[in-house]
Amino acid sequence: MCQLLGMNCNTPTDITFSFDGFRRRGGLTDHHTDGFGIAFFEGKGVRVFRDNRPGASSPMAEAISQYQIKSLNVIAHIRKATRGDVNLENTHPFIRELWGENWVFAHNGTVEGVGVCEECHYQPIGTTDSEAAFCRIVSELKEMYPAKPSEKEIFDAVVQITSRIAEHGVFNFVLSNGHWMIARCTTNLHYVCRKAPFGKALRDDDVSIDFSQYTKITDKVTIIATQPLTKNENWTKMKNGGYVFFKDGDVVYEIEGTLPEAQPHV
Amino acid sequence: MCQLLGMNCNTPTDITFSFDGFRRRGGLTDHHTDGFGIAFFEGKGVRVFRDNRPGASSPMAEAISQYQIKSLNVIAHIRKATRGDVNLENTHPFIRELWGENWVFAHNGTVEGVGVCEECHYQPIGTTDSEAAFCRIVSELKEMYPAKPSEKEIFDAVVQITSRIAEHGVFNFVLSNGHWMIARCTTNLHYVCRKAPFGKALRDDDVSIDFSQYTKITDKVTIIATQPLTKNENWTKMKNGGYVFFKDGDVVYEIEGTLPEAQPHV
Repeated sequence: MCQLLGMNCNTPTDITFSFDGFRRRGGLTDHHTDGFGIAFFEGKGVRVFRDNRPGASSPMAEAISQYQIKSLNVIAHIRKATRGDVNLENTHPFIRELWGENWVFAHNGTVEGVGVCEECHYQPIGTTDSEAAFCRIVSELKEMYPAKPSEKEIFDAVVQITSRIAEHGVFNFVLSNGHWMIARCTTNLHYVCRKAPFGKALRDDDVSIDFSQYTKITDKVTIIATQPLTKNENWTKMKNGGYVFFKDGDVVYEIEGTLPEAQPHV
Repeated sequence: MCQLLGMNCNTPTDITFSFDGFRRRGGLTDHHTDGFGIAFFEGKGVRVFRDNRPGASSPMAEAISQYQIKSLNVIAHIRKATRGDVNLENTHPFIRELWGENWVFAHNGTVEGVGVCEECHYQPIGTTDSEAAFCRIVSELKEMYPAKPSEKEIFDAVVQITSRIAEHGVFNFVLSNGHWMIARCTTNLHYVCRKAPFGKALRDDDVSIDFSQYTKITDKVTIIATQPLTKNENWTKMKNGGYVFFKDGDVVYEIEGTLPEAQPHV
């Protein structure tokens, strides 16, 4: 199983503390060793780094940690391959241009029978079920809305399209266009919204940070992760069929999730 | 004016020697200081690095040089902004998925009145004439050929579409899908095909390399650049309206260019 990491904030934030703990799971504290990828939005542009070496030992991941890029929206993924070869084109996150914006997507789980739709607007480049599902999402959105609709309409449409895909497997994902982030859960997805008063956080590898030294009182930073990255914060566990639409570090729209608890996907 | 660099080979090749000389023009030996970008194909995937800092002093460019990535197709660009702000989404090379492939494009010059076609398949994310022109190319290709045609048909269609765009300005570009590379010239574009017997090359900043120490007898490496990067090799200067389709380091299709010599673009 792969692991997801997302960040959505109201001020450009350095994700290093979370990313360092997260990427240790790629080979050190866990077994997700088939590559990693991370996308940082910067204005309408996006910086993407991918490596098919384990996150924990990749020199690319090391350089990223040292670069301390600040961003409002970040999506990262470490991979344990279940479908598709271990190569660059199969490494999350995936990106497509939709309505003149970069859309970025990463998935954890396996969905069956999405298939390649040859008449669709967007075609997969690699061979993963995840990229095929993402192409289906953006193709259907473009079909439904040739011009960009409101954020609420986007959220509703994403829920509609992805609920159908999720019937065929485990569909935990994070999706962002650089303005907002949508998180969707089948089995495992957690989030924590950090805001004032900021305190200390203790990572699962026992590294700690005092956020109050790095933040302003108005800052809001939401971190989304497959498993909580800190031991002493109040992470919300999402339910099966749950969706959250985050913007500026806040929950804007939410569907709590009413499906029976999904079986863990091994 | 910006500068272009392309590489097309029959064996994965490290572009460091050429890239190092090229990026020195971003701030050291020339004045292209408004960012740089480089895309390395790796299988069907593509690794892209962009920075809006000058190529010569960017830590990102430094890391790339040290990483010594080997690739069959590379496109790089250093920018002196003429249209569009200096930011990440306006930094070449631009990428879109077409027929399930990554298409990568970088442009030197300025083309007028391409405009944004709102019904078109592909929309620009930034505000450059270059990205608008690229979106026009891939949109028209997809319109002409819903499924991927032969390489000759692609070359002919690219010539047809881009000759029309080139009527409205200076349109030097390199374009690749990871299998081949098309170069198109209005004012300045040169190439050199390196093959056995390999000798020494002397860069314009007087750094030299002996390619015979790094190559096999069957290797073919073509370098395309706005201006020749070495002093002692036989670079072919392309003519106004000229096109070359390179594959595996060889010229496969060529249109010599019959238009009157274009005025230098300042």
